[in-house]
Amino acid sequence: MDIKKKSIDLHKKNRGKIEIKSKAPLKTPEDLSMAYTPGVGAVCMEIHKKPKMTWELTNRANQVAIVTDGTAILGLGNIGPEAGMPVMEGKSAIFKDFADVDAIPLAINTTDVDEIIKFVKQIEPSFGGINLEDISAPRCFDILERLEKELDIPVFHDDQDGTAIVTMAALINACRVTGKVMKELKVVVNGAGAAGISITRLLMSFGVKDIILCDSQGIIYGGRRELNKYKKEIAKKTNRKKMKGWKEDALVGADVFIGVSKSKQLNKKMIQSMNDNPIIFAMANPEPEIFPEEAYNAGAAVVGTGRSDFPNQINNALVFPGIFRGLLDARVKQVTEKMKISAATALAYTVKKPTKNKILPKVTDKNAVKAIAGAISKK
Amino acid sequence: MDIKKKSIDLHKKNRGKIEIKSKAPLKTPEDLSMAYTPGVGAVCMEIHKKPKMTWELTNRANQVAIVTDGTAILGLGNIGPEAGMPVMEGKSAIFKDFADVDAIPLAINTTDVDEIIKFVKQIEPSFGGINLEDISAPRCFDILERLEKELDIPVFHDDQDGTAIVTMAALINACRVTGKVMKELKVVVNGAGAAGISITRLLMSFGVKDIILCDSQGIIYGGRRELNKYKKEIAKKTNRKKMKGWKEDALVGADVFIGVSKSKQLNKKMIQSMNDNPIIFAMANPEPEIFPEEAYNAGAAVVGTGRSDFPNQINNALVFPGIFRGLLDARVKQVTEKMKISAATALAYTVKKPTKNKILPKVTDKNAVKAIAGAISKK
Repeated sequence: MDIKKKSIDLHKKNRGKIEIKSKAPLKTPEDLSMAYTPGVGAVCMEIHKKPKMTWELTNRANQVAIVTDGTAILGLGNIGPEAGMPVMEGKSAIFKDFADVDAIPLAINTTDVDEIIKFVKQIEPSFGGINLEDISAPRCFDILERLEKELDIPVFHDDQDGTAIVTMAALINACRVTGKVMKELKVVVNGAGAAGISITRLLMSFGVKDIILCDSQGIIYGGRRELNKYKKEIAKKTNRKKMKGWKEDALVGADVFIGVSKSKQLNKKMIQSMNDNPIIFAMANPEPEIFPEEAYNAGAAVVGTGRSDFPNQINNALVFPGIFRGLLDARVKQVTEKMKISAATALAYTVKKPTKNKILPKVTDKNAVKAIAGAISKK
Repeated sequence: MDIKKKSIDLHKKNRGKIEIKSKAPLKTPEDLSMAYTPGVGAVCMEIHKKPKMTWELTNRANQVAIVTDGTAILGLGNIGPEAGMPVMEGKSAIFKDFADVDAIPLAINTTDVDEIIKFVKQIEPSFGGINLEDISAPRCFDILERLEKELDIPVFHDDQDGTAIVTMAALINACRVTGKVMKELKVVVNGAGAAGISITRLLMSFGVKDIILCDSQGIIYGGRRELNKYKKEIAKKTNRKKMKGWKEDALVGADVFIGVSKSKQLNKKMIQSMNDNPIIFAMANPEPEIFPEEAYNAGAAVVGTGRSDFPNQINNALVFPGIFRGLLDARVKQVTEKMKISAATALAYTVKKPTKNKILPKVTDKNAVKAIAGAISKK
């Protein structure tokens, strides 16, 4: 039986993947009078008198909303909120199992930027943090930027920041394996959506200076046609030689290929045009830009993908549970670039001796959660 | 230690009352590939292709949102969404424990009718039903009416319908005890908010014809000052003798006093002016309109309150878990008056031989859930 059928069967058998559990005993009338009326009235008034008691007397301090509009579910595209729910429930199950975070999936049926922002602000009183999920670019950038300003609780878009952090961690260790120096890398990022732009931003924050970003129209440079606001902005900061052309041109002499695009975007010839010991992250899902065997045959030094069936799985699930554990524990209001770099570094160094077949811990390795949560809550 | 302090301590110790529990195993990379990527992609596409699979492959079929704006929390008034959360978590814990329903509390920070309606419509894809909670009148009537029209899942305002159902059940059994006949009762309802108006409507649906509704300005009659749209509407259908004056006037010769108002609204003299064997439901919380001892001394035949420390607790918690269990099981789209009457009748008849000290089962008696769920899902 293949994995698709097995997965559908699992979901059908369990009717999804999460449920509510009560933390209060409710056996006797006295139990009820404490957890509910009349006792609960005093608890309400305690919060009404001292608003910060919201963090002590309800589950809010451990509770995160996973908000999606269903427009960019995995690599499946705009399949709608109902169809996106299995991914959200999966994240919720991982949140609880890996980091004891209570995450509530909310798949909503609006794709309007202002409405999504208003929605998230409306639910703020019930949550300690917001995990935006699978919202398509460029809307996701606007939404994240505005919510970071307008909310008093932290907000994190996993497809932007989560992907950027795990990619940076993988790159740190790929450098440890190849002896390359991060700040001197020549990087080509293929795909300029939520992930590609966020990876580029984070690598620049770290000090990587030579990055060229490509989309389906080729290399991104200032003044090119078909650039949205975010691509225009990033065009000013990347591609310092103002190169024009296609990814084939950008890759000549490059150290790193980061693919967040689609299958068959990279081939042997392109890899052979790169610098010695090229690092290939072919992260498209479910089919990578190039399969590992072919990349190694072409001379790649380290290859990572998004998949669990090859070594070096570069997956957000390594990141988001620890990020929120740290944010909630330290009651941090905003996820800064510094925190993201600390988290990536901490994640990388959970691997004592990285090799070309182990640049990241396994997704089920709970040291990742501890390391990332520690890095966030220290900041 | 008093109950207030005990309740605050319980909430502090547990940090609230609910948490998430994963239903999917997540120990191995294979587990992850089924509950999350890549396996979950097939589950998403299954729902995308056949939208009704949302009910089979996610927890939606068992999931309810408890939505409040914090404007009418218990008898505490408009204390805001954060301070309302302990009540919502209490309901969630009761939902799970009593009826295995997964209810997600969403306390939101808007009190605007249109915004609340929009909010609920936005979350529809994630839920199998909506429990509106502690939203003040008359806004709650508009919200419920419009949502019933505009949603494809059932919506229930517990403070309206839940209170009406449990009150009707109590009244059915008070009639069994006193030998009075429901349809011939002369009823005075004191308090014309969400509960008072809904109780009146439901009793009328059952066939009770002689009802007088009073608010803080006295008896409600057509043309009186200070009537909102809903009071105007109910004024046309109640008070058939077009009586004016105060509740003291209305109570003369009445069979039943239903108080959903505040403490000290009823006294000995008023009870003595009522018909023989008067039925007194003094449901104000935490302090009833009159205490049971005083009411019995004045000649009451049956007395009920909202409190767990007297016999005959008339509390919504007897109703809402069973209502949603039934709605979800039968995938009912709308809660009709017929269903409410069936539910009330079924609840009443869980008590084989009602007595003046037992007109309702105890709140912790799970037969209530079964009886009500059965009544709803049969319709």
